Amino acid sequence: MSTREFVVLGTASQAPTRQRNHNGYLLRWDGEGLLFDPGEGTQRQMLHAGVAAHDITRICVTHFHGDHCLGLPGVLQRLSLDRVPHPVTAHFPASGQHWFDRLHHATAFHEAAVLVEHPLAGEHVHTPAGPFTLEARRLSHPVESYGYRVVEPDGRRILPERLAAHGVAGPDVGRIQREGRIGAVTLEQVSVPRPGQKFAFVMDTRRCAAAVELARDVDLLVCESTFADADADLAHEVGHLTAREAAAIAAEAGARQLLLTHFSQRYPDVGPLLDQAREVFPDTVAAHDLDRIPIPRRRPAPE
Amino acid sequence: MSTREFVVLGTASQAPTRQRNHNGYLLRWDGEGLLFDPGEGTQRQMLHAGVAAHDITRICVTHFHGDHCLGLPGVLQRLSLDRVPHPVTAHFPASGQHWFDRLHHATAFHEAAVLVEHPLAGEHVHTPAGPFTLEARRLSHPVESYGYRVVEPDGRRILPERLAAHGVAGPDVGRIQREGRIGAVTLEQVSVPRPGQKFAFVMDTRRCAAAVELARDVDLLVCESTFADADADLAHEVGHLTAREAAAIAAEAGARQLLLTHFSQRYPDVGPLLDQAREVFPDTVAAHDLDRIPIPRRRPAPE
Repeated sequence: MSTREFVVLGTASQAPTRQRNHNGYLLRWDGEGLLFDPGEGTQRQMLHAGVAAHDITRICVTHFHGDHCLGLPGVLQRLSLDRVPHPVTAHFPASGQHWFDRLHHATAFHEAAVLVEHPLAGEHVHTPAGPFTLEARRLSHPVESYGYRVVEPDGRRILPERLAAHGVAGPDVGRIQREGRIGAVTLEQVSVPRPGQKFAFVMDTRRCAAAVELARDVDLLVCESTFADADADLAHEVGHLTAREAAAIAAEAGARQLLLTHFSQRYPDVGPLLDQAREVFPDTVAAHDLDRIPIPRRRPAPE
Repeated sequence: MSTREFVVLGTASQAPTRQRNHNGYLLRWDGEGLLFDPGEGTQRQMLHAGVAAHDITRICVTHFHGDHCLGLPGVLQRLSLDRVPHPVTAHFPASGQHWFDRLHHATAFHEAAVLVEHPLAGEHVHTPAGPFTLEARRLSHPVESYGYRVVEPDGRRILPERLAAHGVAGPDVGRIQREGRIGAVTLEQVSVPRPGQKFAFVMDTRRCAAAVELARDVDLLVCESTFADADADLAHEVGHLTAREAAAIAAEAGARQLLLTHFSQRYPDVGPLLDQAREVFPDTVAAHDLDRIPIPRRRPAPE
């Protein structure tokens, strides 16, 4: 069975705490490993979380505030030090190309790994990326910030009892999936629709339509929730979400599960933020460093 | 009493381990705080070690390999975030000015703190720096690397029994120290020489004369010891020291205490490196993250 899980490397916003490293996350999706927003210390958090440089196939940076990318130099240098043989694709706001270049060439090192740059421009970017489509949408933050969405194409789930009823067996099972029919028997007759899994990563932003579009129908929404209700005015002033607003995005978008993260250091206990979010969207959890969150199983196939 | 101690923030060389963060050290010297070689994650290690951004008055970078400076962006941004009111002076090899600039302006942030750049050029640089002189000497490494030396000026220690014998008391005690005499009584008659304390920080280098000069007569020598005896050939090839060589520098220089650090990740146990060093220089200890090493008390005053 393929592994799809979200590994939490760090959960702090602007300043780290004793319990929370700066941001950083790895989404394992079958053979791919998408590293999101590597904050300072990501390289060492990877070690604690059992994530190797070899696991990374793609790096997605939402924006160029330090807490979302100061771990990039260490990660990029590590790809070369550890002789990662496959190319790694980096996505980031094109408007921050100069920041990316500085982080990429921050200090002297011998670059052996192959980095493919894929800067993002425009409101909405689609990138077919092998087993999924990667989408990015521009959010609302003082510096240009993009959220990400990973979408597996819809497929069909084969039902063994229907195969048997239509007498399809052995190599014909693979053939009907590839070719759509075997003689008079169609793939539709032996299967039901299987919605593709969807994942969204919404970082630094005010409430905006793009955040909802990213989160539309996802199985797991990872969303910043920097502030509590009491600091909502501050949140809006500095371009962030409260936990309750993150939950409202999840509810409006029809997400299945919400993972809160990117907490301000002012909250030693994020329990109240979690409570505030759950009032709006019950299936919410608060991330801790080194958590491993399985992507929820696919929605049941409609009969 | 003034505090002079060496706070160990990280002790790993090229790659961090579960137990060892990348390099990073704070030397507390009376009112100053000298941050040496802030590797990635230094900002968070400071938190664990009880070091505040406000404690930093000076930053000394030996060279621009990532493990010695990728924590610089986080530290510099933190000085502004925490509104450190005093200027902070940064020393680094002038040949790496472009690296320093990239690290300083690695990502978007509002710079409120005042950073005074003091790049180093030439074999040997002297900087009078308030309560001490800061010296830097060029070492031998594939990229230009400087070691540092902190020297307190020699002074005199007042002996109460001599004050009493000469009838000096009250405000005259301060006056004789400032002015050198009170009537017929000289400072020399009521005091003995007090050697200034000395500290040296010798990072990435092959054995060289400059390392010995930096360590000359110091009370505490902090020295890289990346490799064990068995890997001496590799050490020389990549421009590093073995633990035994670090000890030989301490012995030749007449240092009083040696602190080994900057260990390769290949040694989960650095006990053998410590043993090898102690064969040459018995007063050696191996650094662990978050150690606090007092600067040894001044040598006894010669009578």
